[in-house]
Amino acid sequence: MTVPGLQFRRARAEDLADIVALLADDPLGAQREQADVQGLAPYRAAFAQIEADPNQFLCVIEQAGRIAGTLQLSILPGLSRGGALRGQIEAVRVARDLRGAGIGRAAFDWAIAQCRARGCTLVQLTTDRSRADAHRFYEGLGFEASHLGYKLSLD
Amino acid sequence: MTVPGLQFRRARAEDLADIVALLADDPLGAQREQADVQGLAPYRAAFAQIEADPNQFLCVIEQAGRIAGTLQLSILPGLSRGGALRGQIEAVRVARDLRGAGIGRAAFDWAIAQCRARGCTLVQLTTDRSRADAHRFYEGLGFEASHLGYKLSLD
Repeated sequence: MTVPGLQFRRARAEDLADIVALLADDPLGAQREQADVQGLAPYRAAFAQIEADPNQFLCVIEQAGRIAGTLQLSILPGLSRGGALRGQIEAVRVARDLRGAGIGRAAFDWAIAQCRARGCTLVQLTTDRSRADAHRFYEGLGFEASHLGYKLSLD
Repeated sequence: MTVPGLQFRRARAEDLADIVALLADDPLGAQREQADVQGLAPYRAAFAQIEADPNQFLCVIEQAGRIAGTLQLSILPGLSRGGALRGQIEAVRVARDLRGAGIGRAAFDWAIAQCRARGCTLVQLTTDRSRADAHRFYEGLGFEASHLGYKLSLD
């Protein structure tokens, strides 16, 4: 399945409000993100750290001149699995009114191709246990739910 | 619980054979790692990539002049959760004959303190669903198994 007119590019500072709005427009994100302009300062600081790290790629997906989605790709070197370089995908969102049209699938095709181009032999992600639709989506792409993902908040 | 005589330091190239032997001495690692000297070349390449990335810390734990354990800490900037900086822990191993003596707990205390010192507000890890002992260990440390961890091999 291909989706016409999608463009994948590195996020710029001026995209930040749109990206945060996408992250917030989600049952879990709504509890965690502050999408108003006053709340953007911590996101600006985080964006600067992402920009400074050559192993991070914050991606925006454009369609017809608007931001249709976002994801973050991290390249992680490590010794495990024969020194496998890993691609890790986080913070995937597609604009609510554009869901179900294949943009998520196209975003993963793009991200996996980026991982291959960087020399990764493994792609990994975690997803909240409550996101049943996401589980079916990832399994349809060939991902295997082999692991549990543990989090510890330091707040 | 404190364990006397533990030292945590950044791994050096000459530690590599010992670290890979630790990774291999494990029911899952035994199928995935090549601990013989001829097999070390891909690990050397991966080690160079870890060394080159200031957001990676490959740690060895020394006790009484030997390598008692290892873990890798990755610092991941991101926009989610209010721009939370995350610490990610991977490839945790304690030498087989030293398990059960509190070294794993001390290693996590150290790693979590490192995460705090770097400004992380979240610590995350994934662990194979078959590692029931590890699950109890992480839950005892306050980690919550809120996520599923998906992997896709690109081999």
